[in-house]
Amino acid sequence: MPSVYVTRKAHFNAAHRLHNPNQSDEWNRATFGKCNSENWHGHNYELDVTVVGEPDPNTSFVVDLAELKRVIAERVVEELDHKNLNLDVPFLQGKMTSTEHLAVAIWAQLVDHIPGGRLYEVFLRETPNNSVTYRGE
Amino acid sequence: MPSVYVTRKAHFNAAHRLHNPNQSDEWNRATFGKCNSENWHGHNYELDVTVVGEPDPNTSFVVDLAELKRVIAERVVEELDHKNLNLDVPFLQGKMTSTEHLAVAIWAQLVDHIPGGRLYEVFLRETPNNSVTYRGE
Amino acid sequence: MPSVYVTRKAHFNAAHRLHNPNQSDEWNRATFGKCNSENWHGHNYELDVTVVGEPDPNTSFVVDLAELKRVIAERVVEELDHKNLNLDVPFLQGKMTSTEHLAVAIWAQLVDHIPGGRLYEVFLRETPNNSVTYRGE
Amino acid sequence: MPSVYVTRKAHFNAAHRLHNPNQSDEWNRATFGKCNSENWHGHNYELDVTVVGEPDPNTSFVVDLAELKRVIAERVVEELDHKNLNLDVPFLQGKMTSTEHLAVAIWAQLVDHIPGGRLYEVFLRETPNNSVTYRGE
Amino acid sequence: MPSVYVTRKAHFNAAHRLHNPNQSDEWNRATFGKCNSENWHGHNYELDVTVVGEPDPNTSFVVDLAELKRVIAERVVEELDHKNLNLDVPFLQGKMTSTEHLAVAIWAQLVDHIPGGRLYEVFLRETPNNSVTYRGE
Amino acid sequence: MPSVYVTRKAHFNAAHRLHNPNQSDEWNRATFGKCNSENWHGHNYELDVTVVGEPDPNTSFVVDLAELKRVIAERVVEELDHKNLNLDVPFLQGKMTSTEHLAVAIWAQLVDHIPGGRLYEVFLRETPNNSVTYRGE
Repeated sequence: MPSVYVTRKAHFNAAHRLHNPNQSDEWNRATFGKCNSENWHGHNYELDVTVVGEPDPNTSFVVDLAELKRVIAERVVEELDHKNLNLDVPFLQGKMTSTEHLAVAIWAQLVDHIPGGRLYEVFLRETPNNSVTYRGE
Repeated sequence: MPSVYVTRKAHFNAAHRLHNPNQSDEWNRATFGKCNSENWHGHNYELDVTVVGEPDPNTSFVVDLAELKRVIAERVVEELDHKNLNLDVPFLQGKMTSTEHLAVAIWAQLVDHIPGGRLYEVFLRETPNNSVTYRGE
Repeated sequence: MPSVYVTRKAHFNAAHRLHNPNQSDEWNRATFGKCNSENWHGHNYELDVTVVGEPDPNTSFVVDLAELKRVIAERVVEELDHKNLNLDVPFLQGKMTSTEHLAVAIWAQLVDHIPGGRLYEVFLRETPNNSVTYRGE
Repeated sequence: MPSVYVTRKAHFNAAHRLHNPNQSDEWNRATFGKCNSENWHGHNYELDVTVVGEPDPNTSFVVDLAELKRVIAERVVEELDHKNLNLDVPFLQGKMTSTEHLAVAIWAQLVDHIPGGRLYEVFLRETPNNSVTYRGE
Repeated sequence: MPSVYVTRKAHFNAAHRLHNPNQSDEWNRATFGKCNSENWHGHNYELDVTVVGEPDPNTSFVVDLAELKRVIAERVVEELDHKNLNLDVPFLQGKMTSTEHLAVAIWAQLVDHIPGGRLYEVFLRETPNNSVTYRGE
Repeated sequence: MPSVYVTRKAHFNAAHRLHNPNQSDEWNRATFGKCNSENWHGHNYELDVTVVGEPDPNTSFVVDLAELKRVIAERVVEELDHKNLNLDVPFLQGKMTSTEHLAVAIWAQLVDHIPGGRLYEVFLRETPNNSVTYRGE
């Protein structure tokens, strides 16, 4: 049976700020530059969730994309969309909100809730020029 | 002599919140929904500035795009990028930060500073699905 | 008061076929080529609906985009999405399903139901290389 | 000698319907929803074919892209473009036309006909939000 | 009868250099910067040709897009693709090759050869950030 | 500690020509077609550089993207942008300028200068339809 990778895209808009509370304001400004801007900035995040598995003989699907969409909506988009990533999100509490951390945290939100196949990859675009990929390694 | 429209693209990332301080919190929540979210959200804004005019016989340009880029950077991008549109931007003080208002305010920042031709259009994309255009009318 | 153009994007997937029932099969094949293919083909249509008007002083909106989204969904997307444009759509009955006709028919579905401002433009992309615009003229 | 991955993009438009003939109409409607729509729907499919190999010292190419384009056109695009995937395509006969099945079937059409290097990956986008990848595993 | 705008996209890749032979090398370097680079540079140009007219009752088309594609290919793409715009193109002889000049010259190549409707607009993207539009005004 | 892949995008515009000086003009024309065009042609190249590593506990970054941007600018973009790849670039001397060779040469420019994590992948798009990926294998 062939193994196929299936990707579902989602979007969310959020405010955030890069700031390490264990370091001085000066260190934060020098390290994060305008990403440390005091009153927040924000992004249109683009998220690709990839699942891998064998197509089911009955449905021809690796995963029911309507189900996968619902899981991504409930466990990721509703938690992050139109939120402040530093203040409003339980699963990001105490974490700096770099795109790297976000992708790892989104993986953790999804990995045990994939409704078919298994989670292979989380891709997260923060700006047209910057993106990250996490594969659970 | 032909009249040609020339468009230069720019980007900025910012936090904002839709909130009318003359109305109740309840009205704001009912009217703006999650865009009224208390701790801000944000966007990757995409801006297209269009200038119209006749190409100069010496340069073959309607406008020197390096100059236009510099003006957009100084008068718009540096003012808005990695900022909170409600709190940090002098030329938005006292205005609600809808995409409509932003486009009109960006027009006002640029209209007397175009280094060749005249300003024809400001296009501003707030999300993959929402955008506005202002032509100074 | 400034006039601002506001655009909302939507998508639908549909099957169709170009065929003029008043002409011979031979004429249809010669005129429409593979677009006349007997068992249908289909597209991911991309629709941009543009409304023009003055921002409301209370909301800062030309049109409530949540309302506009709902109208486009009810009157256009639900009627066309995952449908056969030649067989399944009441408001296309008896019409050939060129992109030109689709855009004019979508305009007619929307023009009296815009929840703020007035309808300015319907843009419809049928393929990466082909699109049409209708402005009610 | 370095190994380089080379990707060529192609497009096709087609109608299809998800339907398992071994199951009841009720099961099909419940499982596939609007993708089971009786009179078909359709998509603009985007296909990326990736070949891997060492650049030839004489041509500096892993594969002649004009040749690869011709093979993709003959063995995939001409078979699928402006067709009904359920009715018109010999190599899909008896298969449900999920994106997963399509990608595996396109792999089989190409794997023995790559004019340089070897086939590494077939990527197929069905909608802006849904895509699959198959690597022959 | 409604008037509909129909757009067809095309692409070409070309080398060029901005240089005014009536000015000194020093003036050219100061005016055009790296676009004056002596050994040429190049672009993937994206061209949108828009025609306006009333849909024909027999075909439902403003213009036969297969015909329009052929005219654009013959009169524009074959003349410009994989060419040096300063050296190889008869209809650009003696002109500086700014995007403004290119768009006006492409308009002149097409305006009397549109196979249905009339030419409304030529849009030409030179880079992701720079583009021009010409409407024959 | 998780391993995350971080990608930074860059662009450059350049002229080039495919030509093997050890072969006859006839062979070159037959092999490379219009890519052998004597007076050069050109492209808007899109470059994605991917680095892999563990996020630093202090910064939450795998790599400081401002630093990575600077390295890509200095060692790749400034060397290639608005240049003739066959004539102007020291690190391409004596090489044919296929996208395959370019990607391998860009890898060599970057691999020992990555300011955090290690270089994982160079992706280079030459045209909307053609791209290559090199992973140092």
